[in-house]
Amino acid sequence: MITRSEVRRAQEAAARLLEAAGIVLTDAERAGMEVAEFGLGELERTGLELVVYVNTDRYCAKELVLLPGQTCPEHRHPPVEGEPGKMETFRCRWGRVYLYVEGEPTPRPKAAPPAGSEEYYTVFREIELAPGQQYTIGSDTLHWFQAGPEGAVVSEFSSVSRDESDVFTDPRIKRLPGVTEG
Amino acid sequence: MITRSEVRRAQEAAARLLEAAGIVLTDAERAGMEVAEFGLGELERTGLELVVYVNTDRYCAKELVLLPGQTCPEHRHPPVEGEPGKMETFRCRWGRVYLYVEGEPTPRPKAAPPAGSEEYYTVFREIELAPGQQYTIGSDTLHWFQAGPEGAVVSEFSSVSRDESDVFTDPRIKRLPGVTEG
Repeated sequence: MITRSEVRRAQEAAARLLEAAGIVLTDAERAGMEVAEFGLGELERTGLELVVYVNTDRYCAKELVLLPGQTCPEHRHPPVEGEPGKMETFRCRWGRVYLYVEGEPTPRPKAAPPAGSEEYYTVFREIELAPGQQYTIGSDTLHWFQAGPEGAVVSEFSSVSRDESDVFTDPRIKRLPGVTEG
Repeated sequence: MITRSEVRRAQEAAARLLEAAGIVLTDAERAGMEVAEFGLGELERTGLELVVYVNTDRYCAKELVLLPGQTCPEHRHPPVEGEPGKMETFRCRWGRVYLYVEGEPTPRPKAAPPAGSEEYYTVFREIELAPGQQYTIGSDTLHWFQAGPEGAVVSEFSSVSRDESDVFTDPRIKRLPGVTEG
């Protein structure tokens, strides 16, 4: 669980990074920014801030914001109702992001899984993205990603997004938010 | 037809607008930027500059750049091979764009079709987009758009893009580029 004041602080920090990236949001988008804490209660380490621009039955576009060092935990997008799982393209806009996907592990990766959760991270092929660089993740492919020390802003272009179907390696994780007063 | 030096000048002008919008491109993206002049030989009035980030069989993402006052002429995206036509979301990132779609014509629209081509513009429901504002155009819907006096940068999120299938109202238009030396 996460308190309302934690949500607000994360939204404000993410809004500052989006502003640094030159990305203009409406007031409604800023106020409605999604803060995913994945049910682990360690938002600074494991979490993600999202602005969903559009999610139709054909395509989806979002801005993903990672606070400094923040990690989006390992998951995959499985097929749903006979459609292949979500395919997504990450384009780094600001900061630095370290993306890990299935394949030959990279020796001496630049990021490490959050302390205490190492056992739930199993893929280590590293793709480092600086602003202007992008990578497309095939459907149903395990992946996780972490921001560098300044944080990161990443545009995500994809097929339809069905967050409730995501499969996380860590069985403790809940994708949908729980917020408590505070 | 368009000369190589006209293409280069349009690419450079568009790159400056993208930079003003805070959008970082790779050198390859800058060098490969598409300049569409639509076969009319009046690029300053009727034309579009594009950076295609990704175009898979499931989704597509581009940056569209309009130089000051430049117009992308009226067209629609018809169904192709049993799939509904392209659906697209325009999100203004910088400058101002006037988008026209089917529906009740807006009294006193802020943009006007390019001189000499008025007869090929038939839809006049105006949607004005400032940075942070967006609009989704349904498939097979006639639309055209024009930049304000400073130009415009627009992110396009969409289903798969098949430019060769686009249907333009103006029968003189050729979507695919012809470039001549010069």
